[in-house]
Amino acid sequence: MDIASLIGLIGAVGMIVGAMISGGGLSPFIDVPSILIVFGGTFFAVMYTAPLPVFLGSFGAMAKAFMPKMKKQKEMIERIVELSAVARKDGMMALEGQEVPDKFFEKGLQLLVDGADEAKLTRQLRQEISAMKSRHAQSQAVVKAWIDIGPAMGMIGTLIGLVLMLGNIEDAKAIGPAMAVALLTTLYGAFLANVLFGPMLTKMEGYTTYEVLYREMVLEGLRNIARGESPRNIQEQMTAGLPPKVQATLQAA
Amino acid sequence: MDIASLIGLIGAVGMIVGAMISGGGLSPFIDVPSILIVFGGTFFAVMYTAPLPVFLGSFGAMAKAFMPKMKKQKEMIERIVELSAVARKDGMMALEGQEVPDKFFEKGLQLLVDGADEAKLTRQLRQEISAMKSRHAQSQAVVKAWIDIGPAMGMIGTLIGLVLMLGNIEDAKAIGPAMAVALLTTLYGAFLANVLFGPMLTKMEGYTTYEVLYREMVLEGLRNIARGESPRNIQEQMTAGLPPKVQATLQAA
Amino acid sequence: MDIASLIGLIGAVGMIVGAMISGGGLSPFIDVPSILIVFGGTFFAVMYTAPLPVFLGSFGAMAKAFMPKMKKQKEMIERIVELSAVARKDGMMALEGQEVPDKFFEKGLQLLVDGADEAKLTRQLRQEISAMKSRHAQSQAVVKAWIDIGPAMGMIGTLIGLVLMLGNIEDAKAIGPAMAVALLTTLYGAFLANVLFGPMLTKMEGYTTYEVLYREMVLEGLRNIARGESPRNIQEQMTAGLPPKVQATLQAA
Amino acid sequence: MDIASLIGLIGAVGMIVGAMISGGGLSPFIDVPSILIVFGGTFFAVMYTAPLPVFLGSFGAMAKAFMPKMKKQKEMIERIVELSAVARKDGMMALEGQEVPDKFFEKGLQLLVDGADEAKLTRQLRQEISAMKSRHAQSQAVVKAWIDIGPAMGMIGTLIGLVLMLGNIEDAKAIGPAMAVALLTTLYGAFLANVLFGPMLTKMEGYTTYEVLYREMVLEGLRNIARGESPRNIQEQMTAGLPPKVQATLQAA
Amino acid sequence: MDIASLIGLIGAVGMIVGAMISGGGLSPFIDVPSILIVFGGTFFAVMYTAPLPVFLGSFGAMAKAFMPKMKKQKEMIERIVELSAVARKDGMMALEGQEVPDKFFEKGLQLLVDGADEAKLTRQLRQEISAMKSRHAQSQAVVKAWIDIGPAMGMIGTLIGLVLMLGNIEDAKAIGPAMAVALLTTLYGAFLANVLFGPMLTKMEGYTTYEVLYREMVLEGLRNIARGESPRNIQEQMTAGLPPKVQATLQAA
Repeated sequence: MDIASLIGLIGAVGMIVGAMISGGGLSPFIDVPSILIVFGGTFFAVMYTAPLPVFLGSFGAMAKAFMPKMKKQKEMIERIVELSAVARKDGMMALEGQEVPDKFFEKGLQLLVDGADEAKLTRQLRQEISAMKSRHAQSQAVVKAWIDIGPAMGMIGTLIGLVLMLGNIEDAKAIGPAMAVALLTTLYGAFLANVLFGPMLTKMEGYTTYEVLYREMVLEGLRNIARGESPRNIQEQMTAGLPPKVQATLQAA
Repeated sequence: MDIASLIGLIGAVGMIVGAMISGGGLSPFIDVPSILIVFGGTFFAVMYTAPLPVFLGSFGAMAKAFMPKMKKQKEMIERIVELSAVARKDGMMALEGQEVPDKFFEKGLQLLVDGADEAKLTRQLRQEISAMKSRHAQSQAVVKAWIDIGPAMGMIGTLIGLVLMLGNIEDAKAIGPAMAVALLTTLYGAFLANVLFGPMLTKMEGYTTYEVLYREMVLEGLRNIARGESPRNIQEQMTAGLPPKVQATLQAA
Repeated sequence: MDIASLIGLIGAVGMIVGAMISGGGLSPFIDVPSILIVFGGTFFAVMYTAPLPVFLGSFGAMAKAFMPKMKKQKEMIERIVELSAVARKDGMMALEGQEVPDKFFEKGLQLLVDGADEAKLTRQLRQEISAMKSRHAQSQAVVKAWIDIGPAMGMIGTLIGLVLMLGNIEDAKAIGPAMAVALLTTLYGAFLANVLFGPMLTKMEGYTTYEVLYREMVLEGLRNIARGESPRNIQEQMTAGLPPKVQATLQAA
Repeated sequence: MDIASLIGLIGAVGMIVGAMISGGGLSPFIDVPSILIVFGGTFFAVMYTAPLPVFLGSFGAMAKAFMPKMKKQKEMIERIVELSAVARKDGMMALEGQEVPDKFFEKGLQLLVDGADEAKLTRQLRQEISAMKSRHAQSQAVVKAWIDIGPAMGMIGTLIGLVLMLGNIEDAKAIGPAMAVALLTTLYGAFLANVLFGPMLTKMEGYTTYEVLYREMVLEGLRNIARGESPRNIQEQMTAGLPPKVQATLQAA
Repeated sequence: MDIASLIGLIGAVGMIVGAMISGGGLSPFIDVPSILIVFGGTFFAVMYTAPLPVFLGSFGAMAKAFMPKMKKQKEMIERIVELSAVARKDGMMALEGQEVPDKFFEKGLQLLVDGADEAKLTRQLRQEISAMKSRHAQSQAVVKAWIDIGPAMGMIGTLIGLVLMLGNIEDAKAIGPAMAVALLTTLYGAFLANVLFGPMLTKMEGYTTYEVLYREMVLEGLRNIARGESPRNIQEQMTAGLPPKVQATLQAA
C-alpha cells in the first residue's frame, strides 16, 4: 500500500469536498446528467482511443498506483554480491535454485544456469525490459486520455448547458441556477483531470522509471557475474548509483 | 471490426446527444450556417494543409481506425519457427511458396528465396518499414489538422456571431438566443476535436506502433533464418518481447 | 499550381465570409484601426524576429505553398537506373551532358563526371541538403512567427478596445457596438493564425520533408552509380521506399 | 545565500502585496477556505504524485534554491592542474590526503589513489553524476507538480464558488463579494505557480546544469591525470570551456 | 545596427500606440500601480529565476538583438582558402600574425601555429563553441522568463483589480473604469511577452544558430588546413553549404 498516494488522494478530495460543504452542502454539486456526460462520455471516448484489451487492462495498472510492489535496491545488490561469490567458487550451475527477490532476477539467473553468455543474457533481458516499458506506456496512454478528454467533455457539457439556458432566457430567475448546473461539468472535468488522473499518471511514470532502473541494475549485476567479476568490484560498481547515505550503509556492511 | 472504437464512439456521442435531448431536444443544437463554418471551413482548411492525394487518402486511413487488420504476433512467431526448421533442413529454396500470414512477411521470404543475404534483406525491409511509417505519418498529420483547426473554426464562428449580436444589441430579448447560436460553433469545434478526431488519432498512432513492432519482429525472425539460427534459439529470442502470459502459452506448446 | 492549397484557402475563406454575409453583410467586420493593429502590428513584430533578408525572402517561400515544383520520384528512379547502365558500360565520363530532371541531380552527376568518389559525393550533397533544410527552416520560422504573434496582437487590440469602452461606459447603448469592434481584432488574429498561415506552415513543412526525401533518394542512387552497382540492384533498392502501387508499376516496366 | 533568489522573491511578493494594500488593504485577499482548497488541496495532490520519501525530500531541495553551494570552476581547475603536477612527479599515491574543494572531487581522487584506471574512474564517476541527475530530477518533478496542480486547484475553487453563488443568486448585492471570493482561489493558484514555484524550478534546473557541468569538468581533469597528461595541456583543455574573461585571468596566472 | 529589429519594434509599438491614441489618447492606458506590478513584479520574479551574474548579463545580451555583429561567411571562406595556400606553401608557421576577420578564427589559427594537430584543434574549438552555446542559452533563458512571467503577473494584477472592484460593487458607475484599470495589467503582460521580449528571443536564437554555424565552418576550414587539403578542395567543400546565389559569386571569383 502506497501511503502517499492514499493520503494524497483522500486529502485533496477532502479539501474540495470540505470547501463544498462549508459553502452550503454537497447537493448543489451533484447533477446526474452532468455526471453522465463527463464521466460516461469520457469513459467511452477513452475506450475509443485504445484497443479493448489495453483499455480493460489499464484499470489494473491504475490500481498499482496505490499498491505498488517497490523492490528494494539494497537487498538486490547484496544478493547479487552473494551470488557472484557463489558463481566464482562453484560455477554457474551452483546458481540453480538460489532464492532471489523477484521474477525478473530469477529469469536472468535461470539464463545463466542454462549457459547463456553475456551477450545472450543482455539481449534477452533488454528485450524483457523494453517490452515492459511499452506495456506500461500503453496503460499510461489510457490514463493520459482520461486527462485530455475529461476537461474537453466538461467544456462540451458546459456549452450544452449554456446553449439551453440562453435559448430560454426569459425567466431571469432561472438563469443563475441553470448557469450553476452548466458549470458543474467543467468542474467535474477539472476534478477528473487534475485530482484523480493527473497525479496518478505522474506516479505511474515514476514507478516505471524506478522499475526500469531496478531491472537495469539487476541486468548489470548479472552481466558482471557472467563475466566472473570479483564480488568486491561488483559491489563498488553497483553502489555508485545509490544515494550517498545508502552507499554508506552498504559499505559499512 | 474494432469493437472498442465503435462502442467508444457511439457511447461518447450517445452521452452528448442524451444530455442534449434531456435538456430539451436536439433542435437548439442544430444551426446550418454554424455547421457550414465549422465542418465546411475545417474541411477546406485541412485540404489546404496537405497535397491533394494525401488529403484524399486520409479518409481511407481513418476508416482503418474502425476496421484494423490486427496481425497476430503469436501465430507469426510460430510460423517463423517452423520455417526456420524448414530452411535449416532443406535450404532457402524450400521456403518458396510457403504460406505466410501477411504480405510483408511474404516479401521478406521471397527475398530469402531469391538469395538475398542478411544485409540486403535488412536494408530492403527496413526501407519498407520506414516508408510505411512515413505514409502513416502523413495520414495522421491530416487527422491532426482536423483536431487543430476544428476548434479554431469554432472560435472564429463564435466571434462572428458575437460581433453580429453586439452590433445589433437593442433588442434585449434576442440576445440570449443569438448568443446561444454563437456558442454552437465552439461546441461543434470541441466535438470535432475531442470526440471525433482526437481519440481516432490516438488509435491510429497505436496501430502504427503495433504494426511497426510486428514488422520488426518479422524482420528479426527472417534475419535469424538467414543466419541459420536454430529454431529453439529463434523462439526464445522472439518470445522475450511478448507479455509474460503469452510467453507461457508459447513455451508450453 | 497546387490545386489543394488554392481550393482549400478559397473554400475556408468562403465559408467564413459566407457566414458573415448571411449574418448581415461584411461591413460590421471591417474596421480600419483594428486591421492596422493586427495585420500591421504583426507585420512589424514578425520583422523584428528575423534578419531583414530572411524576412523579405519569406514571402517568396510562402508563394511556393501555392506553386510548388513537385519532383517525381518515379521518373527520377527510372533515370537513375538508365544512367547506372550508361556508367557501367561507358564509364563516368559518359554521364557528361546527360539530361536529368532537376538541378540537384545535375550537380551530383557533374561531381561524378569530375571524378569525385563516393565519400566526396556524399559529403558535398549532404551539405547541400542540410543547407537547404536550414534555409527552409528560416522561412518557416517567419511563418511560425505570424502564427504566434497574430493572435497576441488580436488580444492586445481587444484589450485596448475594452479599456477604452469600459472607461467610457455611461452611454449604455454604445457598449454593444464598441464591444463588437473590440472583438474584431481577436477575430482577425484567429483568422490570420488558423486560416491563412497555420495550414500554410503545415504545407510548407510537408514540401520540405518531401524534397529532403527526394534528394536523399537521388543521393542514394548516385552513390550506387559511384559504387558501380548493377541497374537491377539499384532499382530494387530504390523502389523499396515507394508506396506498394507505384512499386508494382515500376517492376512491370 | 543566493542573494538574487531572495531579492527576487521578496521583490515580486512585495510588488503584489503593495498593489493589494494600495487598493484597499490585505483583508479582501484573505479567505481561509480558499487558502485551504488551493494550498492544502495542492499539497495533498502533489503528495499523491510522488513516493513519500521523494515528496518529503523535495522541501530540502527547494531550500537549496536559496542557499546553494556554488562550487568555483576556477579554483577547481587550478587545483586539478596542481595535482596533475604532483601525480606526474610522485605517482598516484602522492595524491592521498590532498585537500580538494568538494566531495565528488575527493571521491574521484580516492579512486585514483586506490589504483583505478581511466575506464573504471570514468564508469564510477559517470554513474555518480547520472544518479545525482536523477535524484535532482525527482525533486524537480515535485516542484513541477506544484506548478501544474496549483492553478488547477485555483480553478476548481473558483468553479465551486461560482456554482454556490449562481445557485443562490437572488440577493443581488451579495453577488459582487461572492464573486470576489470565488476569484481568490484563481489568484492563489496563479501566485503559487508563477511567483513561488515557477521561478524556483527554473533556478533549481539551472543549478543542476551547473553542478553537472562542474562534475564533468572534474571528471575530465581526473581522467587527464590518470592518463598522465602534462599540467599545461590540462590547463589549456579545461579552460577552453570557461568564459573568455575567466580564461584570461587563468592564463595570466 | 540591425535595421529589421529597430523598424520592427518601432513599427509594432507604433501600431499599438496609434490605436490607443486614435481611441482617445494614451492617458487611459497609463496606471502607475499596474505598471509596478507587471514590470516591477516580473523584473523581480525573473531575477529569482537566475543567478545574479546571469540576470545582470542578460541585459547586455538583449542589446545585441539590436546591434549584432554579423560575421560574413563569404569573406571568411575566401580568407580560409587564401590561408590554406599559405600553409601549403610555407608551413603552419607562416600563418603567424595573419589577419583574420574574428577572434574565434584567430584563436584557431594560433592553435595551428602552436603546432596543434587536427584532433587537438577540433577538441579545443568544439569546447569553445559549446561553451558559447551554453552562455547564450543562459541569457535566452532569462528572456524566456520575462515572456513566461510577464503575462502571469498581468493576470495576477487583473485578478487583484477584480477582487477589489467586486468587493466594493455598490457604486455601479465606478465598475466600468475599475474594470478598465484591472484589464491594464493583462494588456501590459501581453505587450511585454508578445511585442517586447517574444520577437527578441526569436531573434537572439537566430543569431546563436548563425554564429554556431559560422564557427563550425571556421573549424571545418581550419581542420582542412591542418590536414593540408588543397585550396580548391576546401573552397568546393565549404561553399556547398552556402545559398546557390552566393555559391555562384564565389565560384566566379
